[in-house]
Amino acid sequence: MRIEVICTGDEVLTGKIVNTNFSYITQKLEDFGLAVSWETTVGDDRENLLLAFRLAGERADAVIVNGGLGPTVDDLSQEIAARAAGVELALSEEWLSRMEEYFRKRSRVMPPNNRKQAMLPAGAEVLDNPVGTACGFAVDIGRARFYFTPGVPRELRRMLEEQIVPRLLAKSGMQTAIFLKRFHSYGIGESHADSLLSGVEALVPDGSVKLGFRAHYPQLETKLTVRGRDMDDIRVKLAPVEQEVRRRLGNFILAEDDQTLERVVLAELASREASLSLVETFTSGQIAARIAHLPGAEKVVRRGVVAPDLAAVCAAVGLDRGPPAGGITREAAEAVARAARAQTGVTHALAVLVDLDQGPDRIDFGGSICLAIAGSHEVASRRSRIVGGREWVRLGAVEMGLDCLRRYLQGLPVRERIDFEKVESQAGDATAKTAS
Amino acid sequence: MRIEVICTGDEVLTGKIVNTNFSYITQKLEDFGLAVSWETTVGDDRENLLLAFRLAGERADAVIVNGGLGPTVDDLSQEIAARAAGVELALSEEWLSRMEEYFRKRSRVMPPNNRKQAMLPAGAEVLDNPVGTACGFAVDIGRARFYFTPGVPRELRRMLEEQIVPRLLAKSGMQTAIFLKRFHSYGIGESHADSLLSGVEALVPDGSVKLGFRAHYPQLETKLTVRGRDMDDIRVKLAPVEQEVRRRLGNFILAEDDQTLERVVLAELASREASLSLVETFTSGQIAARIAHLPGAEKVVRRGVVAPDLAAVCAAVGLDRGPPAGGITREAAEAVARAARAQTGVTHALAVLVDLDQGPDRIDFGGSICLAIAGSHEVASRRSRIVGGREWVRLGAVEMGLDCLRRYLQGLPVRERIDFEKVESQAGDATAKTAS
Repeated sequence: MRIEVICTGDEVLTGKIVNTNFSYITQKLEDFGLAVSWETTVGDDRENLLLAFRLAGERADAVIVNGGLGPTVDDLSQEIAARAAGVELALSEEWLSRMEEYFRKRSRVMPPNNRKQAMLPAGAEVLDNPVGTACGFAVDIGRARFYFTPGVPRELRRMLEEQIVPRLLAKSGMQTAIFLKRFHSYGIGESHADSLLSGVEALVPDGSVKLGFRAHYPQLETKLTVRGRDMDDIRVKLAPVEQEVRRRLGNFILAEDDQTLERVVLAELASREASLSLVETFTSGQIAARIAHLPGAEKVVRRGVVAPDLAAVCAAVGLDRGPPAGGITREAAEAVARAARAQTGVTHALAVLVDLDQGPDRIDFGGSICLAIAGSHEVASRRSRIVGGREWVRLGAVEMGLDCLRRYLQGLPVRERIDFEKVESQAGDATAKTAS
Repeated sequence: MRIEVICTGDEVLTGKIVNTNFSYITQKLEDFGLAVSWETTVGDDRENLLLAFRLAGERADAVIVNGGLGPTVDDLSQEIAARAAGVELALSEEWLSRMEEYFRKRSRVMPPNNRKQAMLPAGAEVLDNPVGTACGFAVDIGRARFYFTPGVPRELRRMLEEQIVPRLLAKSGMQTAIFLKRFHSYGIGESHADSLLSGVEALVPDGSVKLGFRAHYPQLETKLTVRGRDMDDIRVKLAPVEQEVRRRLGNFILAEDDQTLERVVLAELASREASLSLVETFTSGQIAARIAHLPGAEKVVRRGVVAPDLAAVCAAVGLDRGPPAGGITREAAEAVARAARAQTGVTHALAVLVDLDQGPDRIDFGGSICLAIAGSHEVASRRSRIVGGREWVRLGAVEMGLDCLRRYLQGLPVRERIDFEKVESQAGDATAKTAS
């Protein structure tokens, strides 16, 4: 089945808006085993819209059109859809009363120009939009079925998942029950994960489990797409594969499905009524920025400090005599974490110190990260070297700091070799857990 | 002149990469008065690439193709360009020696598969790429001139600006000298700025100055596109308009051209060998994150602190007796800024405290921002109320904090009514500068 996408609107065509709706649509379809083969962007222009609809209608089996369903004069999708399909526009009484209801619930009167949103090509199938006034619809143009969707991202998302994906799966003759299981990891590269997971698909011999990856440094997403008769069938098929993925990726899995690293860390801390203090150099406070804005974080994250160098860090955490000699080391990070914990009266403190290389910011520019976590019983620390440019080091230091904190809270080793670090031939490179 | 863009590559088509190259291309062309009327995305697929080239070659006068110039087997642009143009591929000796030189300079031997990058459609015009091995080129397909560009963003940018824009301007018959002057402001909405600047274009009666805006909350970019015979002509035309824009937008202009608010603040501080301490609530350290990663900031930004509430803020800055009674007020912000300055021995301290509404995060959710700046002579403070959801309040607080610091450093009033704030009927809402 050939699927195309048409994105409409001057704001997208002129680049005022980056087209994230398209990447969302194509990624979502891929999650369900459906591939997009062509995308077209045109502006709010009758001639180009009509041509784009006709060309796609000649080539494709299914076309998703995004945008142009609003109430204003430059929203042209219904009008041009009707012309391309060779039918008239007709008022949908059903959608008109839905809209009036929508405004009534919000104690407002429907403005007259919203009536335009209920004008659909005659014979069109309505695609429900429970979160807005733009009416989705489906209609045939040429040899293809066209699905018209709103430009507002949350309205598009809901309509795509609830209305359009099931129709595309049915049209493609695929089994309609499908499920996407996701694992998020840090520290394993895509090709390494691929070889670690070699053969897991074969645990379900009928080929209904498909393995895939999505790399977005520093994290890797491992995806299992499972097809089945129904959700019970899917659960039976998924169980052994899911278990095997967890076993093989082990400690590197930091979250599953919609969870995130920072939410997992926050939940671990909140569940034990713990509190956290953060100390960062070079990362410009990005560890705090990741976690402190989450709902509930205000009870847990008691202080975040960013300072430019070790002396300033020591001053900020009240280490008046300065750190142990030798600059940024594991021992220095441990001393800072202990001091931050004592100073702020929290249960846990994380210190991430970065010793940057000198010289120009190139692909071989690197930094050494020394981090430490002080808890009630012990201090854990690690040292790691990351190479790949300033921004790469910064992203790596933020992720490593948060992930080591997760490992500490989950009772896993804080020091475990990751694919993104350079091996250093230094005695001080081993992890130590020392009594605090 | 009809211009189209074709983006190629499976990573873009499957949404693994969001297509920022396209929005860059179309925005850049718009800056030069050139409009894109159609965009097509296809994958690394011979049949679809050929069809896309042929269709665009029938419709357009000029086509920019992005991606597919790399050394690997799935890079197909040269091959398909030759087929669509009806010519053979031929080795460009010129580009081959350029590549060999490129590797030699980096003390590396050119891998054999890079030779593919010097195979161009016979008769193609080379478009220089001074920062990579992908060779840009131009060739006719159908009735259009096609310009092939690399997918790597910094290579694309350089080639577009230096090689392609001048060719498009010449092809379009436009005067080739064109200049874009930009002003960045905070605190004025687009329609307000539009009315403030009404008539400025008419200061140059021949219509060669065009006014435009690009809003990205919280900042607004005001653009003057100027055409002329040459840069001298442009300078003469621009001068009175530029001066008038500065006069009318006044204190709200925070930077011009490639400057940014955070760089302006950093430069003001660095020029007087000043140092800065930052204290934030609710913004989760985003003020520090904006400024602390800039080159040179490590000498200026001595400490950034984020804490969840007023009590935690006071503890962090050593205000043991706590702030003046009454919660988050201008007076409390002033006390915090003074204490942070004294505690860290810096010349300047900025405190941004946010008193959030209770209740669900909706469009009418708001917060009151109290901020203060302590310098060597005086403490300035302001209070402002922003409504529009949690994230809107957060972005507004970050921008207001940085912009008030700019105003303070530039000797401008810290308190000046902005379009994004709700007016409060409170006596305490006026700005005060009190001796510190």
